[in-house]
Amino acid sequence: MMSMKYSIIPIGYVEKSGSNVSLIIKDSYWAATTHLDLFSHIIILWWIDGRDNPSDRQTVLVFPPRNKGTDQSGVFACRSPARPNPIGHTIAKVEGIVVTKNQIIVDHMDAESGSPIIDIKPYLPSSDRVEDAKVAPWFVDLIPRYY
Amino acid sequence: MMSMKYSIIPIGYVEKSGSNVSLIIKDSYWAATTHLDLFSHIIILWWIDGRDNPSDRQTVLVFPPRNKGTDQSGVFACRSPARPNPIGHTIAKVEGIVVTKNQIIVDHMDAESGSPIIDIKPYLPSSDRVEDAKVAPWFVDLIPRYY
Repeated sequence: MMSMKYSIIPIGYVEKSGSNVSLIIKDSYWAATTHLDLFSHIIILWWIDGRDNPSDRQTVLVFPPRNKGTDQSGVFACRSPARPNPIGHTIAKVEGIVVTKNQIIVDHMDAESGSPIIDIKPYLPSSDRVEDAKVAPWFVDLIPRYY
Repeated sequence: MMSMKYSIIPIGYVEKSGSNVSLIIKDSYWAATTHLDLFSHIIILWWIDGRDNPSDRQTVLVFPPRNKGTDQSGVFACRSPARPNPIGHTIAKVEGIVVTKNQIIVDHMDAESGSPIIDIKPYLPSSDRVEDAKVAPWFVDLIPRYY
């Protein structure tokens, strides 16, 4: 099992136009968004395709931008785009759904336009919200996005 | 781009033994956990390898367990293990790290023992915690795990 590889297929892509950010879903997967309008926030998994190369995928230690000049962190202890599997993880607010365009309008995406989307999950506070999470000192002062 | 496939490599696997749940990380990726001890909670992405088959990956509509007998939801509007890319998403508390065993002990995993782990990210309240998220009616009564 440990030597296996698994295969990921894009289900759509990120579209950025000015300040508008959308997820455009392939026709064959649009039905999979049924009832997504009942949720305010979603978890978007996307492929950091600009970092899908052997060098970035073999990187295990980096200087996180928030901790420059001190010591390195493992890529599993920060959100580095260089990581063994370049999967981006973004929580966004759903601003609207345009059925005729297979389009989910969101409030932000820290992905380049054109980035492949690989999964969408509804944000469930029961399993996804942690009230008192401890983080490394260099992340303590980050401003919360959804207060 | 839309017809491409991407390749995922396991970075470790889930080990369950009685009530103990651990993530066992491959030697080549253990350094990537450096400073993970500074975080209380992590996001674990894993491969639902039991559902990595054409039928499950082509499933777009399901009856969520919490909404049986009413109407179907899209797999992007629930946490169905049948989905185009069978990626599991679990937020867990780090209970301990055993360096000599490449072992991260966690409080729970909704994955079978042996499931491949494909990424670990630190839980950052600034981007990962949503205070007032709306969910579909059939998810409203779920008991929060981390209050």
